[in-house]
Amino acid sequence: MRKTEKLKAHSVEIAASTTAAKNGIVEWHRIVAESDWKNLPNLLAEDVVFHNPSSFEPHHGKGPMQVILPAVFSVLEKFEYHRHFGSQSGYVLEFSAQVGGEKVTGVDLIEFNDEGKIKNFVVMMRPAGVVLTLSAEVGKRIAAA
Amino acid sequence: MRKTEKLKAHSVEIAASTTAAKNGIVEWHRIVAESDWKNLPNLLAEDVVFHNPSSFEPHHGKGPMQVILPAVFSVLEKFEYHRHFGSQSGYVLEFSAQVGGEKVTGVDLIEFNDEGKIKNFVVMMRPAGVVLTLSAEVGKRIAAA
Repeated sequence: MRKTEKLKAHSVEIAASTTAAKNGIVEWHRIVAESDWKNLPNLLAEDVVFHNPSSFEPHHGKGPMQVILPAVFSVLEKFEYHRHFGSQSGYVLEFSAQVGGEKVTGVDLIEFNDEGKIKNFVVMMRPAGVVLTLSAEVGKRIAAA
Repeated sequence: MRKTEKLKAHSVEIAASTTAAKNGIVEWHRIVAESDWKNLPNLLAEDVVFHNPSSFEPHHGKGPMQVILPAVFSVLEKFEYHRHFGSQSGYVLEFSAQVGGEKVTGVDLIEFNDEGKIKNFVVMMRPAGVVLTLSAEVGKRIAAA
């Protein structure tokens, strides 16, 4: 692909979010605010794909997210969402938190299917050093549980 | 803030991007596609703030971005933008790339001022281990330049 063709491929016109995606993100915020992890599976597509910040290969299916997300949120202190960005079928939510007193910022990239279920969930965080600390602590808590 | 109040604070209604932000992101895509780094300063606000993926503290002003971004793009191989998410004043651009043959994915969170100049630029990437490799290599190239 030539450079000019590549440039044209990126539309800057972002379509408004579907009702399914809006309902899905409202439910996600409710689950996080209330730590209602037992209802997370109802918000996930059967074939959901989860990408964590520390390893490239994703996790497939509901199982890994049900185990990993509660563990991550148990390690993160002072977790708060900030800016929101949207697309037709998804959202990017920016957050801040602390890990053992160290500040982190991150994003959740959440993609919904037509039923408003999460089909793809990517977490990215910075700085990278603290992400490795978080990852090690989450691993310990999952192993201990 | 109580949990229910916190929940209400997150609007899922994302306003359409301003013309200034649209023009800004088109120019950003042009600069990246053409590696036209000499024109980057024209797209930056004087008080732009840059947050890299490896250290928490941001860089202030045009100078650091003019040095760091060309160095980062010289290390990243097979760089390609993918999903775009928008807000009234900014965009999130998802990308994939390679660092020494290792795959990474990342996001640029780009916030524009009313003149369409970048006022805030956050880069997050995963996996964290490869981010540290990238950061070390960028540091070497900047020191050598």
